[in-house]
Amino acid sequence: MTTLAREIISCIESVVPKEDKPIGHHEPEFQPDDYSYLKECLDSGWVSTVGPFVNKFEELLKSVTGAKYVVAASNGTVALQIALQVAGVKRDDEVLIPSLSFVATANAVHYNGAIPHFVDVNLETFGIDPVKLNSYLSEITEVHEATCFNKKTKRPLRALVLMHTFGHAGSIDEIKTICDQYHIEFIEDAAESMGSLYKKKHTGTFGKVSALSFNGNKIITCGGGGAILTDDETIAKHAKHLTTTAKVPHPWEFQHDEIGYNFRLPNLNAALGCAQMKQLNRYVTEKRSLAKAYAKSFRNHKAVLFFEAPENCESNYWLNSVRLIGSDFETRTEVIAACHEAGYFVRPTWAPLHTLPMFQECPRDDLAITNQLYNEVICLPSSARLGRRYV
Amino acid sequence: MTTLAREIISCIESVVPKEDKPIGHHEPEFQPDDYSYLKECLDSGWVSTVGPFVNKFEELLKSVTGAKYVVAASNGTVALQIALQVAGVKRDDEVLIPSLSFVATANAVHYNGAIPHFVDVNLETFGIDPVKLNSYLSEITEVHEATCFNKKTKRPLRALVLMHTFGHAGSIDEIKTICDQYHIEFIEDAAESMGSLYKKKHTGTFGKVSALSFNGNKIITCGGGGAILTDDETIAKHAKHLTTTAKVPHPWEFQHDEIGYNFRLPNLNAALGCAQMKQLNRYVTEKRSLAKAYAKSFRNHKAVLFFEAPENCESNYWLNSVRLIGSDFETRTEVIAACHEAGYFVRPTWAPLHTLPMFQECPRDDLAITNQLYNEVICLPSSARLGRRYV
Repeated sequence: MTTLAREIISCIESVVPKEDKPIGHHEPEFQPDDYSYLKECLDSGWVSTVGPFVNKFEELLKSVTGAKYVVAASNGTVALQIALQVAGVKRDDEVLIPSLSFVATANAVHYNGAIPHFVDVNLETFGIDPVKLNSYLSEITEVHEATCFNKKTKRPLRALVLMHTFGHAGSIDEIKTICDQYHIEFIEDAAESMGSLYKKKHTGTFGKVSALSFNGNKIITCGGGGAILTDDETIAKHAKHLTTTAKVPHPWEFQHDEIGYNFRLPNLNAALGCAQMKQLNRYVTEKRSLAKAYAKSFRNHKAVLFFEAPENCESNYWLNSVRLIGSDFETRTEVIAACHEAGYFVRPTWAPLHTLPMFQECPRDDLAITNQLYNEVICLPSSARLGRRYV
Repeated sequence: MTTLAREIISCIESVVPKEDKPIGHHEPEFQPDDYSYLKECLDSGWVSTVGPFVNKFEELLKSVTGAKYVVAASNGTVALQIALQVAGVKRDDEVLIPSLSFVATANAVHYNGAIPHFVDVNLETFGIDPVKLNSYLSEITEVHEATCFNKKTKRPLRALVLMHTFGHAGSIDEIKTICDQYHIEFIEDAAESMGSLYKKKHTGTFGKVSALSFNGNKIITCGGGGAILTDDETIAKHAKHLTTTAKVPHPWEFQHDEIGYNFRLPNLNAALGCAQMKQLNRYVTEKRSLAKAYAKSFRNHKAVLFFEAPENCESNYWLNSVRLIGSDFETRTEVIAACHEAGYFVRPTWAPLHTLPMFQECPRDDLAITNQLYNEVICLPSSARLGRRYV
C-alpha cells in the first residue's frame, strides 16, 4: 500500500471508525413510520400511478423547495428528460451540459433527439465554469432572432443544464446571467442537491425547469423517484400531461393528444417518499456534520483537499469528496483499491461523459478541469448515519 | 334511459349485485402477506434498482411463464420499448401494430424512432387478423436480402407487435408463420395476458421478445412494473444492460458503453410483485369464474355478445367485455353513461390509435373492424373479487 493510500485511509478511519463497517457509499435509512406509510398505501388500494400520496409528496416538495409547481416522476432521469422537453428542447438542438456528471444528464438530452454539448467545470463548485462558458460562447455562437446558434454546426444551442455536483450549488447567478444574455434556457439538474440552498433559496428553483431524484442513493428515497420543479403553470401542466401518457381527461374515453410517457411516480413509491421527507432535515444535519468531521480530519494533509461547499451555498453534503492534488489515474486508482480493501467504499467521479463511446462525437469546449478531476477526486462514504455522532 | 341500457345494466347487476358498489374496473387487492414483503424490503435497506426481490420476481415470472429469461422493468410501456430495441427495431423502421390497443403500444414504437404501421383486428380475438394481414403484406411489401420493405415508403417493416387484447391470446401461430415468411420480427405485447395460455403455453413466450405489465389495473401489480421475456440469452443480457443505464460492471468506475435507460424495477416494487404472485392462480380462477357468470347472464340477449376466449386460448379474462352488435358511437355512449349512473364503471375500447392526432399520418391498412369495435365494445367491471362468489 502506498503512503498516500495509508494516510487517506487513516483520515477516513478517524471519522468513520472500523466498527461501522462495511461502509456503503450512501445507505438509505428507514424508520418504523416509513413502514406505516406503505401499509396505509396498500390499505387504500391505491398503489399505482394515481393516489393521494403522489399529491401529498408533491405538496411536501413544494413546501420544502419553495417551487410553485412540482410534478412527481418515476425517477430523476425521466424527470430531466421531461424538464428538457417542456423547456422547449427539440430534435437536433444542442444542450450545454457538464461532462462531469452522471450519464443520465447526457442521456436525457439524447432522449429528446438533441445533442449534448460538453462544457468544463471549475474547481470551486465542480459545476459549470461561468468564466470559461462565457468566453466559449462568445467564440462559437451567434444569436439570430432570439435564438443562439452554434456557428460551426448551425444548430440552435437551446438550453443549458447546470448540475449541482455532490450537492454543492453551482454558480447559479453567473450562469443564469450568461444564459439570459445568449437566449439559452437555464435548467437545473438538482438530482443530488435536495436540501441544498443557494443564497438562502433552494436549488432547483432558479431554472425555468429543474429535476430532482429520489433514487436509493439520494438523501431521501422513494425506491425510485424523481420530480420536476417549475414556477410556470403552463410548463407544469404540460409536464404532468406528458408524464401521464398525455391522456385527455374523460370519465371513460381513452384519448391522448400527443406522444406521452408512463413516467408518473407510483403511489407506493410516493408513500415512501412522504415518510422519508419527515427525516430530510435530520439527514441534512447529519450529512453536514459528517462533512465537518471529514474537513477537519483532512485539514492537515497537504496533498489532499476536502471539497468544501462554495460561497453562497449551504450544501446538503450529499456526497463528501476530496481531491488528491495533482494525482494521475494510476495514483487515485491505487488509493481507491486500497480503501476498498480496508472496507471503505470510495469511488472516483463518473468517467467524463465526453469520453464515453456514444458521446465521443459530440461538440465540446476544452475539458481540462473535468479530466483533471477524474484523476483527482475520491468520494467518501457519506451515509447520514455516519454523521450522527458528530451532530 | 334506453331499453338497451336498462337491459345491459340488468345483466351486469345479475352478476355483480348493487351491494358490491362502487364497482371499479380493475381493483387491485392486497393480502396481509403483501405487507410483510414490503417490511422485509425496508428492513433489508434495499429499496432501489438493485435488490434480492428483483431477482426473485424474475425467477417467479420465469417459472410461471416458462420463459428462459426475464428482465424486470419499471413498467409495461418501457418494457415494450426495450423489447423492440433488442429485437432490432431502429430509427425509421416501420412496426406493424394493431390500432386497437392502449397508446403505449404505439408510443413504444415511436420512442425507438420507428413508425407505427396500423393493421386491423378480427372479431374472434380482437387481435391482429392474420388473413387480412397476409393479404395486406402481399400487396404492400417486397423482400430484399431477408428484409421486408414497405414498397410505398421504402422503409423496412422490421417487426410486428401482437397485443393479446383483454387477456385473450391473439392468433399466435398464424401470425408468427406470416412474420417468418416475410422476415418480420414477431413480438408480443402481453401486458394484459399474464396468466393466459395459448395451446397450453404461456402468452409472451412465442415472440422473439415480449413485454408484460404490472400496473395497478393488471391482474397482479407492483404499483408500477413490467417485464421483458425472451428465450434468447444475448437478447436478455442486452435488455438488462439497457434497463440499467448500460453501465459496464466495475467495483467503482462509472463507465457506460451505449445509450441506456433508468428502467430497472425498484426492489420495493418487486417486493410487492413477489407477494402478489402468490395470488396469481387464485385471481385467474376468480376472473374466469366471473367471465362465466357474465357469459351466462348475457347469453339470451340477442343484440349483445359476450367476448369469449378464442379457440386454443385459456384466457385470464383480465377484462370482460361485450359487443353491442351493430351499435354506433352514440348508442354505446348512452349505454356507458347509463351504467356509470347506475354505479357500474364500464368503458369502451381505447380510441383507435390511428385516430389520435400524433399518429394520423402513419401508414395503415383498412381498419374497419377496429373502428366497428370502438362503437360496439363495452368493457365490464372485472376485479377478481367480483368473481369470488362464482368459484
